[in-house]
Formats: sequence, structure tokens, C-alpha cells
Amino acid sequence: MSSVLVVGSMAYDSIETPKGKVEDTLGGSATYFSAAASLLTPVNVVAVVGEDFRHDELNFLRIRKVNFDGLQQEKGKTFRWGGRYSEDFNERETLYTQLNVFEDFSPQIPPAYKTTPYVFLANIGPQLQQQVLQQMDAPLFTAMDTMNFWISGNYESLLEVIGQVDCLMLNDSEARQLVDESNLVKALQKIAALGPEVVIVKKGEHGAVMRTQKGLFFAPAFPISEVVDCTGAGDSFAGGFMGYLASTDDLSENNLRKAMVFGSIVASFCVEDFGIRRLQSLTLAEIQERYRQFRQLTSVE
Amino acid sequence: MSSVLVVGSMAYDSIETPKGKVEDTLGGSATYFSAAASLLTPVNVVAVVGEDFRHDELNFLRIRKVNFDGLQQEKGKTFRWGGRYSEDFNERETLYTQLNVFEDFSPQIPPAYKTTPYVFLANIGPQLQQQVLQQMDAPLFTAMDTMNFWISGNYESLLEVIGQVDCLMLNDSEARQLVDESNLVKALQKIAALGPEVVIVKKGEHGAVMRTQKGLFFAPAFPISEVVDCTGAGDSFAGGFMGYLASTDDLSENNLRKAMVFGSIVASFCVEDFGIRRLQSLTLAEIQERYRQFRQLTSVE
Repeated sequence: MSSVLVVGSMAYDSIETPKGKVEDTLGGSATYFSAAASLLTPVNVVAVVGEDFRHDELNFLRIRKVNFDGLQQEKGKTFRWGGRYSEDFNERETLYTQLNVFEDFSPQIPPAYKTTPYVFLANIGPQLQQQVLQQMDAPLFTAMDTMNFWISGNYESLLEVIGQVDCLMLNDSEARQLVDESNLVKALQKIAALGPEVVIVKKGEHGAVMRTQKGLFFAPAFPISEVVDCTGAGDSFAGGFMGYLASTDDLSENNLRKAMVFGSIVASFCVEDFGIRRLQSLTLAEIQERYRQFRQLTSVE
Repeated sequence: MSSVLVVGSMAYDSIETPKGKVEDTLGGSATYFSAAASLLTPVNVVAVVGEDFRHDELNFLRIRKVNFDGLQQEKGKTFRWGGRYSEDFNERETLYTQLNVFEDFSPQIPPAYKTTPYVFLANIGPQLQQQVLQQMDAPLFTAMDTMNFWISGNYESLLEVIGQVDCLMLNDSEARQLVDESNLVKALQKIAALGPEVVIVKKGEHGAVMRTQKGLFFAPAFPISEVVDCTGAGDSFAGGFMGYLASTDDLSENNLRKAMVFGSIVASFCVEDFGIRRLQSLTLAEIQERYRQFRQLTSVE
């Protein structure tokens, strides 16, 4: 069993969905990722928070062997985000973004973290992702996320970091935008040509696709009859995926596929309640039970 | 091996896609369905055409044991449809619809067809679908398609026919519209409560989902790197699905799942060229080869 390092954001989110609303609830990519991955393996976190940060809310993660030695606290307020989902959850409107201390985030990797074998660079600027990689000591498997903002605004430095990681995860429309290709099969080929041996495209309710040198793999989204809040689903997917890989220390094709299923399952729990609530109460036994059910969803003899 | 009956349209389509355009090419739901199903099992067709119909173009289907005794020819012109696809194939604009002889279509089932065990009611008015069912002699398995036009305009008679079939196939947005439910898992439950034991939701490039009393099954769309024309993909799916069921005469859960995969595969060939061209040249060996590849797409040990 190996540890996984995540570098990303910690935030207070205000979220409105067809099922209700919450205000200033703990969120951010590093939070969702570590809440998901820590169910499977130890996690090292690098992120930045402000003076208003409620440290006690991380206690449930500390119990799960999440190490916060890399949590930087700066003068000012914690990153805040507000968003609203449409009736069918297919559209999300950003109501406000207050970067606050996140604006000057400069990730410093504590010495004890530098040999973490699995590294996840959540959706932060490509220069910061680069800065993290430079501080690491020969990681075994590196993965990164990105978004449309960096694709249109920081294309060159984004390509540079993409060329250095083993795995790129991004969503459907971002994959098409990154290589200017509307056909997903071709887009996956073009992205692989940029460097990453493993490319994962997240398609929300339509599941996720992975491309490796061995071929394509489709994991449906685990069917959920009561979606409450989709915030953090992508980072939970990444946490389940990376957490499973690190916990098994096996990068074979079949294990990458299992990791995709774990990612999909953890994300399916995440959307069942607001914010990180469901990930907070989630147990490994529940994940394993859903894994068993998941197998039936695509099984043909 | 049993036969399958299809009742639907025959048409001349003019189609514009990002890959080119064709004019007055043979199309229609009964055409796509029988071109697909006839690769697997004998097909009986009921449809209507006008005096301008080019009967020779059906010869490739006659060779494949498609029976056209139920093809009605009426005074006037054949149904014509024109459509244009967007750059990413996600939107389709109807340029014109000329119902012509299809406007007064009254499906007459030839006596020799009445005992056909498998019946597919393609996307025609629910009253006509009803009229077909009344003429049949205790079919083993009946399936139907429908569309938004009938859901909003003929809701009551649509519900009546849905209550009488074993299987309803429709697309994503139609399923949600039919039972006014944005969550797909719940929509599938509500549709099953209307009667059909098998409900299939087609999601285009995102594959298809089947709900039976045994649970949910997800079949991804077979990945195609060069999509040329999506016209007829849904009817090809139905043809592959029903053709496989009829050819094996096995309605077990596992065989329904296999039929979903055959449907998905035949549809994936259909979109590789304009109109019915690819289905015209397609062989059973090619379907079987892709079936083998398909299994790898979702396989986890």
C-alpha cells in the first residue's frame, strides 16, 4: 500500500441545486480528492487556506490517515465559490469566485512528502502543477486534471506539463477543446500523442472512458436515482481512481480498469448529498458492495 | 431461428453532414431496420411507397430473405425527408418533411405475416401501431419505438399501445419527456410501470441502457473514429437487437444483453457511411469481429 499526494484547492462553497442549498460548506478539489482517496489509502495534502479556515472540519480526514503537514495557512480569507445547477443538473452556473489566498498559492512540498509514489495535480494553474513536479523525487505515477480556463489561457505551459505526466483526466468538452477534435476517439488519440500513457475522459452521467496503449475502456456512471449535488464528483472520481491504484500498487491494464470502476463508484456516492457529506459517512464496505453491483451493469456471458 | 416483422416508413432522404451530402437516398425506419435485422434473421416488411419508388434498390435485401409482400404502393410520391447535422453531430435540423403517401398509411398485415413471432413497431403514429398489434396472431415478443411528436400530440393513445408491448425503445430526452422525470433511473422505473418489461433508452454516442426486472444493463456505443452520417442509427440498433433475439429465439436476461450489444454494433457500422450504404456491404463476419472487440471495451477481471 502506497500513499498518494494531492495538490489542489480548499474552499468554502455555496451551492444551489434542485434539491436545496448550502452555504459556505467545505469544498475544493483537494478536499474532495482526499475524502475519496483516504477511504482506500493514506493521503498527503498540499493546499492553501485563509485565517478564517475551520480546521476542525478536517478531523474526519485526519482519522483516515490524511496528512495535512502541507496545508499552508496565509493571511486573508479562504477561497470561496458559489454555483447553481439547472433542473436536470446538466448545466452549472458560477455565481461568484473569490480566489482570496488561493490567488498567490505557491505549492511547497514538505520534505517528507517528496517521495510519495502517486501524485495527483488537481485543477490548478499549469505553472503550479509544473512547480509541484519539480519538487517531487521520481514519483511512480503522476496524474493531472485541468479545465477550459487553462486550455484557452495557458495553452503552452499546459502542454508542457501534460507532456510530463503519466495520466491526464479531463471532461468531455475539455478533451475536445484541448486538441480541437469533435470525435472523441480521435481526440483521445491526439491527447495520448501529447505524452500521457493513460487518458481519462469524464462524461458525468454518461460515465468515463479510459485510453491506454492496450485500448479503450468504458465505465458507466453508477446509476443514482436521487442526485442531490454534483459538486466534487470529478475530484471524487480522481480520488477513488488514484486511491485504488496506490492501495494496490499495481499499474497493469486490468488494475487501471478496476481503478476506473472505483473512481466511478466513489463519485456516485459523492453526488448523493451536498458537498462532502456523503464522503464523510462513506465506508469501504459500502464501496465494495457497490463494486459488486457495478459488475452486473455491464456483464454479458 | 424466427422471423421478425417491421412496420415503418420507407423514404427518400436528403442529408447534409460535416462529411458531405447525399440527395434522395433510400431511407426510412423500415429500410434501416430490415437492412440491419436481415443480417441475422428473415424479415417481413410492411410499409408504403409511392409511384416514384425505385424497387430495384431493395434487391440487396431480397437476397437476404427480406419479404416485401407487405409493401403497399399507392398513388402519389414516396415520403421525403431532408435534414442537416451540426459540426459535432449532436444537433439535427429537419429541413423539410413531405409525408406524401405516408400521410394516409394504413398498415395491412398480409395473412402469411400474422404469425411472425417477433414484431417491431417503428416510429409511426400510435393508432397505426395499435392497428398492427390487432392484426397479429399472438406474437412472442413485441417492441416499439416512438418520438417526441407522439408524446406531446397523442399521449393517451401512445400510453395505450405502450401498455401492450413487451419492449419500448426510445431516446434519452424522449424517455424523460414521456414520464416527466429528469433522473434517468427513475424515468426507467416509471416507464416500466406503464407496462413494458423491457425498456431501452438510446443515448447516441453515449450508448444505450436497458432496464428489465433483473436490473440495469449499460452497453457503450462502439467507438467510431470517423462518423459520416447518424441517420438511421436508432433503427439499425433496433434491427440488430430484434434480429439477434429472433435469430436465437431466446428471451433470457443474458440473451437480451447480447442483443443490446448486437444492436449497438450494427448501429456503429451504420454511422460510418451515408444512408444505408454501410449496412448494404456489411457482413455477419464483420459484426462478429466487432462483437469480439466490443467485449474488451467493458471487460474487467
